[in-house]
Amino acid sequence: MEVRVIVAGMKLIPHPRSTTLLLAIDLVGTGLFAAEGASVAVNARLDLLGVLVIAIVTATGGGIIRDVLLGDAPPSSMRDWRYFSIALVAGASVFLVHSATHFENSSLITLLDAAGLSFFAVAGAAKAVQFGLTPLLCIMLGGITGVGGGAIRDVLISRVPMVLRGDIYATAALLGAAVTVICLRLKVPPAIASSLGIVSCFVLRMLAVHFHWNLPGAVPANPS
Amino acid sequence: MEVRVIVAGMKLIPHPRSTTLLLAIDLVGTGLFAAEGASVAVNARLDLLGVLVIAIVTATGGGIIRDVLLGDAPPSSMRDWRYFSIALVAGASVFLVHSATHFENSSLITLLDAAGLSFFAVAGAAKAVQFGLTPLLCIMLGGITGVGGGAIRDVLISRVPMVLRGDIYATAALLGAAVTVICLRLKVPPAIASSLGIVSCFVLRMLAVHFHWNLPGAVPANPS
Amino acid sequence: MEVRVIVAGMKLIPHPRSTTLLLAIDLVGTGLFAAEGASVAVNARLDLLGVLVIAIVTATGGGIIRDVLLGDAPPSSMRDWRYFSIALVAGASVFLVHSATHFENSSLITLLDAAGLSFFAVAGAAKAVQFGLTPLLCIMLGGITGVGGGAIRDVLISRVPMVLRGDIYATAALLGAAVTVICLRLKVPPAIASSLGIVSCFVLRMLAVHFHWNLPGAVPANPS
Repeated sequence: MEVRVIVAGMKLIPHPRSTTLLLAIDLVGTGLFAAEGASVAVNARLDLLGVLVIAIVTATGGGIIRDVLLGDAPPSSMRDWRYFSIALVAGASVFLVHSATHFENSSLITLLDAAGLSFFAVAGAAKAVQFGLTPLLCIMLGGITGVGGGAIRDVLISRVPMVLRGDIYATAALLGAAVTVICLRLKVPPAIASSLGIVSCFVLRMLAVHFHWNLPGAVPANPS
Repeated sequence: MEVRVIVAGMKLIPHPRSTTLLLAIDLVGTGLFAAEGASVAVNARLDLLGVLVIAIVTATGGGIIRDVLLGDAPPSSMRDWRYFSIALVAGASVFLVHSATHFENSSLITLLDAAGLSFFAVAGAAKAVQFGLTPLLCIMLGGITGVGGGAIRDVLISRVPMVLRGDIYATAALLGAAVTVICLRLKVPPAIASSLGIVSCFVLRMLAVHFHWNLPGAVPANPS
Repeated sequence: MEVRVIVAGMKLIPHPRSTTLLLAIDLVGTGLFAAEGASVAVNARLDLLGVLVIAIVTATGGGIIRDVLLGDAPPSSMRDWRYFSIALVAGASVFLVHSATHFENSSLITLLDAAGLSFFAVAGAAKAVQFGLTPLLCIMLGGITGVGGGAIRDVLISRVPMVLRGDIYATAALLGAAVTVICLRLKVPPAIASSLGIVSCFVLRMLAVHFHWNLPGAVPANPS
């Protein structure tokens, strides 16, 4: 039996929870970001456990922030063992391949990162739409979900977070989220709306990397 | 219809949610901290998006931590588009003014920061009182709300958080929170209680900055 | 009256909340980590307030992350004034003793840290079992609870978090959590299950420190 209740002064309406589509997007993004995080950790010469920790943080951080902000606790990755398992397998695989081959490929990292960013930005925006947030906030939450895991990773390994560095990173996440939210408002079927969002984010990010696009800086180029 | 329910073993009592006064304090603090965060980001030579990200993080971070800790999810700034809009407008304005004038004024930053700290410390304490926490915890939560956004900002741009540096910073937030909590317990009208809290925090902080007041250090001044 | 309700699409089942045993483990861990965090802060030459902030963050951080992830808000340490009080008293005592004696003992810090890690890993795992998470996730949450407070502390004072450094740290937390979860599944009485978990984590951690055990690194020992 379902009852509508007022909890903490707020009307909570039962809503469909993690549709299959959203779950699929989430899990693909988890694998991509785990592999990317593990590659960054391997390049930073961490040991096996450090690599696995960074893989898990990068892969689940954004989704955990999203779910905590939406009040959907425990977060998806705490209710479903597949998130952690995928992150562990992806992280361990990267570690093993790297130990065997000493392969370092920063282009591959950039590619995995752009793909993970796209999937998570869309997953964040789509879940916020399900939870009935206003469009502006859905787009913000998509952006936060996309950049969150990577930001925690960068803070842990003492890098300036990607989101604060010069190129178009959060902008791509916000674009992907905006495309998804607008499409969903226009009643485009969810699978198509999500795909368009993922593609726009990915394409903008890769173009920005390739052509070194930057947003205007506060001061003209005199590096301090 | 409102029902009292036992959720997760805990009695949740419907309570008034963000009174107009609390909302006003929250929004003023948001604008102050957004302007302050953007100024810090501009001085750190971030680009436009970096400045906006830092403005948003500084302005909403403390309140988000407060609401997550109170179990009031989604946080206020995720339910009400005005928080993000104010933060974006304040951040963009600082960026534009700075680009046009190359104006750097660290006294202004200190002033904005002290004001933001005061508003958020009081907002945190007042909201915790509404949620029925014990006085000690209301004061702690006021302190956390005041220093939270700035601490995340400082971690992101790799500065030692203000709260850990030598001068009286968290102490001022705790004072403002304590004044507010005590006044509310003494049935002082909320508007007066909040004003007294804001003024005490602000005055202590500015006096500490002006006279270089410090708390005792663990070891006498032999800088390492 | 207790009613079972569907909130946000999820069935919430009333569960016993912080048994006396869990509370005791939590409070002991809080004191241990507060003393350890304060010692680290004193060595980093922070002033009194900085030492207290770090003591509180280290002592309550892991439990707050655990409770937020479990959806148990406000977190235990926000509902029960004893957490903050213990952390404050432990932090202030360390500060005073150190000011009087200039005593620095890194072996003591290591010991306090290993003990705190053990208590929190078990508290995290046991609470997750109470909340009905799957065994794998209970173990992960135990690990997160154990290492969480220390990780936030290290980020605040700009150290590479312990969990990412070479020796067996998170592994010990995961072992303690796993022993507890397995014992509880085998119907071992909670007090014994917890004790076994605490001892296994503590012993593994101290052995690793003593014999300099490390997990395999991605590249053979050529320090960069």
